[in-house]
Amino acid sequence: MSLDTYVSAKPYHLLAEALQDDLEAMDRLIRERMQSRDAPLIPEVAAHLVDAGGKRVRPMLTLAVARLFGYRGEDHHRLAATVEFIHTATLLHDDVVDEGRQRRGRPSANLLWDNKSSVLVGDYLFARSFQLMVETGSLPVMDVLSQTAAMLAESEVLQLSASASLATTEEMHMRILRGKTAALFSAAAEVGGIVAGATERQVEALREFGDAFGIAFQIADDLLDYFGDAETTGKEPGNDFRERKLTLPVIKAIANAGAEERAFWRRTIERGEQKDGDLEQALELIARHDAAVEARDEAREWSAKARDALEILPDHELRDMLHDLAEFVVVRLA
Amino acid sequence: MSLDTYVSAKPYHLLAEALQDDLEAMDRLIRERMQSRDAPLIPEVAAHLVDAGGKRVRPMLTLAVARLFGYRGEDHHRLAATVEFIHTATLLHDDVVDEGRQRRGRPSANLLWDNKSSVLVGDYLFARSFQLMVETGSLPVMDVLSQTAAMLAESEVLQLSASASLATTEEMHMRILRGKTAALFSAAAEVGGIVAGATERQVEALREFGDAFGIAFQIADDLLDYFGDAETTGKEPGNDFRERKLTLPVIKAIANAGAEERAFWRRTIERGEQKDGDLEQALELIARHDAAVEARDEAREWSAKARDALEILPDHELRDMLHDLAEFVVVRLA
Repeated sequence: MSLDTYVSAKPYHLLAEALQDDLEAMDRLIRERMQSRDAPLIPEVAAHLVDAGGKRVRPMLTLAVARLFGYRGEDHHRLAATVEFIHTATLLHDDVVDEGRQRRGRPSANLLWDNKSSVLVGDYLFARSFQLMVETGSLPVMDVLSQTAAMLAESEVLQLSASASLATTEEMHMRILRGKTAALFSAAAEVGGIVAGATERQVEALREFGDAFGIAFQIADDLLDYFGDAETTGKEPGNDFRERKLTLPVIKAIANAGAEERAFWRRTIERGEQKDGDLEQALELIARHDAAVEARDEAREWSAKARDALEILPDHELRDMLHDLAEFVVVRLA
Repeated sequence: MSLDTYVSAKPYHLLAEALQDDLEAMDRLIRERMQSRDAPLIPEVAAHLVDAGGKRVRPMLTLAVARLFGYRGEDHHRLAATVEFIHTATLLHDDVVDEGRQRRGRPSANLLWDNKSSVLVGDYLFARSFQLMVETGSLPVMDVLSQTAAMLAESEVLQLSASASLATTEEMHMRILRGKTAALFSAAAEVGGIVAGATERQVEALREFGDAFGIAFQIADDLLDYFGDAETTGKEPGNDFRERKLTLPVIKAIANAGAEERAFWRRTIERGEQKDGDLEQALELIARHDAAVEARDEAREWSAKARDALEILPDHELRDMLHDLAEFVVVRLA
């Protein structure tokens, strides 16, 4: 398998362009709420992450969905900022948990400051996100987002327990992936619809869209971590291997591994004893069992599912852009 | 100054007895919401803290206030559990930040498990607390609690910046104390009133009561850390000194310190170089400048302020019990 990571990110840029005013309004809100009269460390740490410019895919879902339902208020900015704050808080706490060294191409916050700051500033952003959603006054929205926050944290704990253990099944892995990643994509799309007055059936479709899109997005990300190009992805390939993360391609390779191969994975992932040449060996084993091809095919299926879910939504150029975005994340996996 | 820590905790026990049914209902709710189908680590870590039996002073405020306004629903159980979850989450994250070794007379969670678990389980409890408050459907309640959560986190960050620096002023210290401790006492009392339909003026009085009570409670706690009796307080005296915490008695002693004394505090608190006999020396310096007596008098003033605030509340035995409890926390400081 080869990955053509040079495919143009046009669908992403078109969407960002169409949402430009909304994204700017959201950015202003984010900056405003990161301020702290007494504790300058908060805007410092938070800005480090926000300015590094994550792709803001999650809040873009909220904004696009609200707009395609013709929403004219300002609560979608609050909700988009809520979603981005929850995501950022999770990244800060993840860095403590993973002892991560790089985040969005920069040294992670816990290397620049320390674990304490990452924990506390994460807590602050998390609390701020709840304030923002309360300001919308919409109980259904708060219900979705507070459930999602609990699901995120639960999945993180579950991942911690499963972490680096070869006994992790594909089923368990997918449950963690859904809770850790897809749940927030799903909530982001859902609350955009709720705030704009979508019907129950449409909200259900948005939930399905977000879930499937999130899964496709994450599997693609995990594949690119092994097979992507550093220049395009902004990440050194093999990061997940070095950090002993069990992602789908590896889990699939392990499921088909003979005794000798299992010993390799046990040493490199479970015990974390890695040496030169191990990454290349890992890539070969993943290829040998078609693990990457299978993972790619699954990502494509989820992407198709996401696009199907969009069909009952109102006919709108933003709907088409979401469709193209859901396709784009797997098109890269040539 | 001597501290008679043997004064009976009768006001506390009377209140707990009067609220017994409510406390049991709250405990059931807490246990129920700590469950996790997939991640058994969550109930394990959380139960370690909850079973250690904090005094549950904060949720008792919520329950007592709701009851004294004649509340008959069940939302006060949800709100009391919310308050206890927020408090417990804060303790878990505090342990990571303080590198604490003991919590409620047991080894702290991060020693038994690890920092990762403390961070993630704290996040989970925090998210659960938001779910619980959303279930009440009361926007004013959510407004108060989400603001309080942000204030807590902000004050923690502020404390981190001020941490162990002799430049910390009394004014800065009191701001941190109010945000870190009194804000949750205040919110606990306030939401008990809101959910029970108290008037705006009464809610304002509850806020004042909680704030003043929380300040008195914390100053008393900080004094007991130096002058209390291990058997009664359940803590080894001098913990705050060993952990280089700048509490009110120390800040007052430093404000009046000569050059030699400042050097002592700089070495023991700022640089953390402590040796045998230092605690005794610290106690003597605190006594020499009447720092403990002054701190005690301030605690008493806040306690009186708390009791005054209760006056406009309905005449009720629970109101009298809250009055006695606010008195009790400083009566110990003989």
